[in-house]
Amino acid sequence: MQPPATPIRVTVWNEFRHEKTKEAARAVYPDGIHVALARHLSAQDGLAVRTATLDEPDHGLPDAVLEATDVIIWWGHVAHGEVRDDIVEKLHARILGGMGFIGLHSAHFSKIFRRLMGSSCDLKWRVADEREVLWVTKPGHPILQGISDHFVIAQEEMYGEHFDIPEPDELLLISSFAGGEVFRSGCTWTRGAGRIFYFRPGHETYPVYYQSEVLRIITNAVRWAAPVHAPLQTYGKRAPVGWFE
Amino acid sequence: MQPPATPIRVTVWNEFRHEKTKEAARAVYPDGIHVALARHLSAQDGLAVRTATLDEPDHGLPDAVLEATDVIIWWGHVAHGEVRDDIVEKLHARILGGMGFIGLHSAHFSKIFRRLMGSSCDLKWRVADEREVLWVTKPGHPILQGISDHFVIAQEEMYGEHFDIPEPDELLLISSFAGGEVFRSGCTWTRGAGRIFYFRPGHETYPVYYQSEVLRIITNAVRWAAPVHAPLQTYGKRAPVGWFE
Amino acid sequence: MQPPATPIRVTVWNEFRHEKTKEAARAVYPDGIHVALARHLSAQDGLAVRTATLDEPDHGLPDAVLEATDVIIWWGHVAHGEVRDDIVEKLHARILGGMGFIGLHSAHFSKIFRRLMGSSCDLKWRVADEREVLWVTKPGHPILQGISDHFVIAQEEMYGEHFDIPEPDELLLISSFAGGEVFRSGCTWTRGAGRIFYFRPGHETYPVYYQSEVLRIITNAVRWAAPVHAPLQTYGKRAPVGWFE
Amino acid sequence: MQPPATPIRVTVWNEFRHEKTKEAARAVYPDGIHVALARHLSAQDGLAVRTATLDEPDHGLPDAVLEATDVIIWWGHVAHGEVRDDIVEKLHARILGGMGFIGLHSAHFSKIFRRLMGSSCDLKWRVADEREVLWVTKPGHPILQGISDHFVIAQEEMYGEHFDIPEPDELLLISSFAGGEVFRSGCTWTRGAGRIFYFRPGHETYPVYYQSEVLRIITNAVRWAAPVHAPLQTYGKRAPVGWFE
Repeated sequence: MQPPATPIRVTVWNEFRHEKTKEAARAVYPDGIHVALARHLSAQDGLAVRTATLDEPDHGLPDAVLEATDVIIWWGHVAHGEVRDDIVEKLHARILGGMGFIGLHSAHFSKIFRRLMGSSCDLKWRVADEREVLWVTKPGHPILQGISDHFVIAQEEMYGEHFDIPEPDELLLISSFAGGEVFRSGCTWTRGAGRIFYFRPGHETYPVYYQSEVLRIITNAVRWAAPVHAPLQTYGKRAPVGWFE
Repeated sequence: MQPPATPIRVTVWNEFRHEKTKEAARAVYPDGIHVALARHLSAQDGLAVRTATLDEPDHGLPDAVLEATDVIIWWGHVAHGEVRDDIVEKLHARILGGMGFIGLHSAHFSKIFRRLMGSSCDLKWRVADEREVLWVTKPGHPILQGISDHFVIAQEEMYGEHFDIPEPDELLLISSFAGGEVFRSGCTWTRGAGRIFYFRPGHETYPVYYQSEVLRIITNAVRWAAPVHAPLQTYGKRAPVGWFE
Repeated sequence: MQPPATPIRVTVWNEFRHEKTKEAARAVYPDGIHVALARHLSAQDGLAVRTATLDEPDHGLPDAVLEATDVIIWWGHVAHGEVRDDIVEKLHARILGGMGFIGLHSAHFSKIFRRLMGSSCDLKWRVADEREVLWVTKPGHPILQGISDHFVIAQEEMYGEHFDIPEPDELLLISSFAGGEVFRSGCTWTRGAGRIFYFRPGHETYPVYYQSEVLRIITNAVRWAAPVHAPLQTYGKRAPVGWFE
Repeated sequence: MQPPATPIRVTVWNEFRHEKTKEAARAVYPDGIHVALARHLSAQDGLAVRTATLDEPDHGLPDAVLEATDVIIWWGHVAHGEVRDDIVEKLHARILGGMGFIGLHSAHFSKIFRRLMGSSCDLKWRVADEREVLWVTKPGHPILQGISDHFVIAQEEMYGEHFDIPEPDELLLISSFAGGEVFRSGCTWTRGAGRIFYFRPGHETYPVYYQSEVLRIITNAVRWAAPVHAPLQTYGKRAPVGWFE
């Protein structure tokens, strides 16, 4: 790939509630998950990173920010219901128009992810300091650049199948948990011109977002999800291309 | 397949407005598209067919009907906006729980189909008495049982790509139109335990729903979309299957 | 589905070597894996079952048998290399023409499966009396009829990712193993008009093919893979359907 | 994407027979299709391009060339049978290991493409100076960067469905032809770590490989198919990651 003429503009969105109210979360992410991720991404070549959080005006996502975002990363958990529907609609339209979307961990239940998927996005879960092993199922995929055949997260929340999602376009990673469950932990889809990646790891009380493989995958995913420069599709009543004769 | 213990219960839903207000539609479907389809399906083995229309109470879909429906067929066009949101939510929940859904023609823009897809479902269109040729791209699929390598519809409305849908699980049919356009005319997806089929043909002023190939495909699709008898998935907080030792 | 006019004709093919030479295998399958499976399948409605083994003339698969087979089940392990190439070619042609193929366990390395897949079909493995848990990832699929959200096999050989297969059309089951690995244990593809199902369980020294869930899935898969009655596709030089005008 | 540390190494392989023996082909591609393509690709940033042809020793593909190729482009038609099987095996192994493969036009029937697909790769065809319209079905895909919603090739050979390929991972383009046929003209798959793109246009007697949209798509595809730098997968007998406890 050629270097883009301009950097990829990334917005890291975080609900940012646990880190203010729950000691175990603050201990791990004192400035919030968004800041931890933004620090890492800002140090990568060709990325221009900002953050946004739920309690800012317009959740930190006024039109000017949405228009200036190429890829949005989303983390939410206890306050999905507080995200304004009009902003979800704008997010949805931007994604169909080409903005990339990366949903992390409990973002599986966010309004925007469920809107994109069309299914319940429900799953099984358990918090038990459990070992997770993530296995590569699509070697050669750009999101897995630099990743070996598996990696281990020492302690994580369990998410288990059935994960009620549409069949992914591509299945990149499957996890096993010590309690016996499995999970499709890295999945891609497209909606309109927008590229979507769901990545499972990231419970708020574990230092998962400091682990090198996790950060590598998120960084790769940002580059993968960045929009392609092409004219938008046209719809509606159309003259023929030309009657075949 | 073994004969089901009980018949497949089919509900044919129609907006039923054009046939009341537009002479060209009434001429072709004097009792409505739903009645034309229901007549054909009722004559097939193992199907128990009812109809429902927009202007009936609860759009003809009270809870008792939804609960007693295995597969719903949907035709709508000018009044998508009049379909009540609470009924769309019930339809959506029933589909995730296993009810089959068959969307016909302009149902691409119905609330329920867009809710299932998560994309805009937009497309190009033109009404010009145009010849459509439908080509099989997945021979061996049960929905194509009895269908040759292609069939022709003498006059149809054109629908053209880009059709803004998620990548289908299976692509069964591609159409060409005299004006040069193409369209993915037979597509399947799953959402939850529900099986979904979109089938393009069916403009209200053409006798498409009397054509044998079209009726054969709809009948096959009803059998394909009928729910499988298996325990529903469980979600939420779960004890481990048993720690591995 | 309506009852077929004639039964589905199933051929259970087994290499049948371990059961003759390895005490641990003979103890579990004294008449061979093929006979154990055929006994179960023969007791199901609408199936006409025969067996075939490697050391019979033409591996038990002369043209007359291939022509009279709707679905073939395949088990092999130590003698993949002894299967004659001309018979592999005939199998391949029959599958493209619509015969269903169900590959069990170590059939992943059979000539015919690798020919259908186009990839190496390699994987990780270990024999350690290990617990396997199989999780449903596609509820509502006909092959999973009657199966709950998971089931356990008490002792099995481990197969682990990366399993080098093309992206499945449908992913039905994912396994976890006590040693931490995962595996895509139930996968479907199509090649030509033929429907293919790979199902992982079945090491020759464990009584896996007597377990009810395993037998249920194999039986469902036979019904799912049975060919659809439709004219075969035509290829080669063709006159136009008719120039569009 | 960041600029690669080293250029992408592209080998354009051509059978190179028509251009020597058929006046109509030589008139369009006097130095061969491979040279026409290589000239264009060599002018793009970050690509290092060589060519290879059938009648060179080892078809121009000795081990040293294969090892030094990141992406191979393949054009063949009348002499598929002359390609040596041992070289096909080496190509196959290299692709599973990560080399990208771009098959053009009649490469659908090449040994290597059929080996990768596992199906017959057959299709319908006709040479009649026919107009082809190619429609985008996956906006936002990197291979479609810079491409609008459709483009027209004034004169082409017709290829028609059913195209006997495995369900593509991604369907990027569908063509319509004046005679009424359609074709899946841009498709991707993966095999092992290798990324595969089939692109339909390119009959040897039409100046298709000078048309800007066609060249843009081939160039994009080279960048898309270039291998990802990650450790190769490991297979075979494995110790557990660690027993879960």
